[in-house]
Amino acid sequence: MERIYVNQIQGKIGQKILLKGWVHVLRDHGKIKFLILRDITGTLQCVINSNIIEAFKTSETLTQESVVSVTGVIVEKKQAPGEVELQVESIEILSLASPELPIPIVEKNENETEQSIRLDWRWLDLRKPEKALIFKVWTAMEEAFREYWVKNNFIEIHSPKFMSTPSESGAELFEVKYFDRTAYLAQSPQFYKQMGMAAGFEKVFEVGPIFRANPSFTSRHDTEFTGYDMEISFINSFQDVICEEEQLLMFVIKTIKEQYGEQVKKFYGREIIIPTSHFPQVTMKEAKSILAKLGVTSEEEGDLNQEEEIKLCEYIKREHGHEFVFVTKYPISVRPFYHMRDTEDSNLTNSFDLLWNGLEITTGAQREHRYDILVKQAKEKGLTLEPIQTYLNFFKFGCPPHGGCGIGPSRIIMKLLGVSNVREVTYLYRGVKRLTP
Amino acid sequence: MERIYVNQIQGKIGQKILLKGWVHVLRDHGKIKFLILRDITGTLQCVINSNIIEAFKTSETLTQESVVSVTGVIVEKKQAPGEVELQVESIEILSLASPELPIPIVEKNENETEQSIRLDWRWLDLRKPEKALIFKVWTAMEEAFREYWVKNNFIEIHSPKFMSTPSESGAELFEVKYFDRTAYLAQSPQFYKQMGMAAGFEKVFEVGPIFRANPSFTSRHDTEFTGYDMEISFINSFQDVICEEEQLLMFVIKTIKEQYGEQVKKFYGREIIIPTSHFPQVTMKEAKSILAKLGVTSEEEGDLNQEEEIKLCEYIKREHGHEFVFVTKYPISVRPFYHMRDTEDSNLTNSFDLLWNGLEITTGAQREHRYDILVKQAKEKGLTLEPIQTYLNFFKFGCPPHGGCGIGPSRIIMKLLGVSNVREVTYLYRGVKRLTP
Repeated sequence: MERIYVNQIQGKIGQKILLKGWVHVLRDHGKIKFLILRDITGTLQCVINSNIIEAFKTSETLTQESVVSVTGVIVEKKQAPGEVELQVESIEILSLASPELPIPIVEKNENETEQSIRLDWRWLDLRKPEKALIFKVWTAMEEAFREYWVKNNFIEIHSPKFMSTPSESGAELFEVKYFDRTAYLAQSPQFYKQMGMAAGFEKVFEVGPIFRANPSFTSRHDTEFTGYDMEISFINSFQDVICEEEQLLMFVIKTIKEQYGEQVKKFYGREIIIPTSHFPQVTMKEAKSILAKLGVTSEEEGDLNQEEEIKLCEYIKREHGHEFVFVTKYPISVRPFYHMRDTEDSNLTNSFDLLWNGLEITTGAQREHRYDILVKQAKEKGLTLEPIQTYLNFFKFGCPPHGGCGIGPSRIIMKLLGVSNVREVTYLYRGVKRLTP
Repeated sequence: MERIYVNQIQGKIGQKILLKGWVHVLRDHGKIKFLILRDITGTLQCVINSNIIEAFKTSETLTQESVVSVTGVIVEKKQAPGEVELQVESIEILSLASPELPIPIVEKNENETEQSIRLDWRWLDLRKPEKALIFKVWTAMEEAFREYWVKNNFIEIHSPKFMSTPSESGAELFEVKYFDRTAYLAQSPQFYKQMGMAAGFEKVFEVGPIFRANPSFTSRHDTEFTGYDMEISFINSFQDVICEEEQLLMFVIKTIKEQYGEQVKKFYGREIIIPTSHFPQVTMKEAKSILAKLGVTSEEEGDLNQEEEIKLCEYIKREHGHEFVFVTKYPISVRPFYHMRDTEDSNLTNSFDLLWNGLEITTGAQREHRYDILVKQAKEKGLTLEPIQTYLNFFKFGCPPHGGCGIGPSRIIMKLLGVSNVREVTYLYRGVKRLTP
């Protein structure tokens, strides 16, 4: 008999079926045992009657979270969840779980178990249907991003994570013992996606790990995370990048809502809102002025701290009814040397961040593609040219105007599901103190 | 005017258009200049007549590989490649290339330029249309893999690259300075995709970098490469993994041929053959016996060296007309502790490699999911249990029978295009001596 999944039982009443999965709950009612079986698609109540002698005997040795193969007949049962249940005919134990689970799988209130303990036993934590949903949504999200990119003739790159020199500032860099010398782990594919522009690939994307030796312990930071990166050529300004990202995100959010809107509502109580109009934009200067009027001030010059991001988004939502806002024209002091400068105010860059409901999910810019100006900007930032000479050479033999952005998928998932800690939406979180499991 | 691509000029005869791209070739015929413009979709001959004064003047300052924006009218021209050309009306230089190119873009015979020099200037090397094609095919290949996985309800994971302990043997491991301790770079997502099985995800895939501190300089090895990994639960034997991979590869190769078969033939002279029947299988013992009859012997016990892989594939092709062969039942001596053992001969594992035209492209197996047996096998291999205890714990609280494989996409590309060196099909190759660009 071929195994079917729990979500395939519709229309099978009266039929004999084979299910495989985990013992989600096991309840002893004397001559009857109730086993709630869980597979990746859902849960189903299974009833084991003592007159099914072999199966009943097997069920007496069962422990919660054991893996079983169960055959039986699907019957209607008004009181059961889903109004059907399985009348068990046979049970085979595929893997017997140790009786003492280190964390509960079925919890009334998740916060009863401390997060760090749940992370220690992440594979048990992920058995909860609402946790598995995170990664089903992630899979759909990544497919949607890629569908957009591939449809629009982007070329995929897998750029190296080993670098001979730091890609950005040199801060928060991981060092690797690389045979008889030192390599650095890429903090972003920035240089390499720009190399794609110099190579004439015109539009590229990359999905891959980003490494940041960030010593902070916030709910938004980790030492390793997945990054989505894109870069496009022949732009007229950074507004072309913004425009592309708007279309991309509208498509992605629409696709996720179509596939998982109902389940997100069921498990996370959230209604996914598909943006339909252009995203509002404010310059950094305007953002600071709005925040000042709201009485929100900070010591961050030319950048926004977490409170400012939240307050600005609340304001935009009130005034424009939009969950997103592009903050543009960051001052050169907070942007890397390769961001193109504003022709009207050379203290500003042609750059942007995208905030979604109080959280930065993207950083982007038009890049400086003119060799001489790029060299000048690097010198002004106090950089030594020698280590970045190969990068600078990208712009010596014909390179089109280009720009792009880096997008944080874990942050998008946080906002889609209303989860406030990045550790909960990462398959296996890595931080200063965490390298396991 | 909106920019169009070279591959969009069909049906535009007599129309004024805007093209952007690189100066592929520039030829001076006195009062006429011929400019072959290249964009990511192809090349087009553009004619600049001296009576178009501004454009002609601009063209006199042009260098090869500069980036330009060109307007003009598409006209029929029998002698031109493609039988059309652009009569230029205006040229704007977007980026002027330095006149001395370090490597030629247009070469009669690529081998004229040494590979290491081409790799130094990889972004120029990649401008060659046949090189860009590698990454278009890669993009299509990765999409096809993912389409198969997503259609079949696989969940995507992004597992950490930082580990506290070696994932496999401890050999060829990169060490990272991780705050006040040492981390290791993952040599495969093996443990983490198995964690997905213990988490009840049932079927997972991952696309990501693999790090191997391999000191060798062969044409097949690098220190960092992209790996495709999959793992599936509730299998009956490793034959279920083989079956899944066969279906997957048939779908992928068919998809690539549909999209790029013509271009692969044009640029690489290769006819892609879509496998339609089950892939032949031989056990390692049978493989050795076939090779002995062919007079091919080696000191490799229970494994195949490069010559053996080639000769075995030639034999299979002659005898079975098939480019693929699964070699199964590797002895325990050459397989890691977590491979499940053969019930009939405990010196053998339920494992396989897949060879394609002489090259290993996959390693797979059924994994041992029974805690006690796994511990026993680890001890027999001389492993200390403490560093792998978290991994061992995956199997304590209910874990279904499972197996999977790791697939090398760069090796698939090598075989699709008939390229013999992995450095040529990698966006940016990393080896013992190479960390740049």
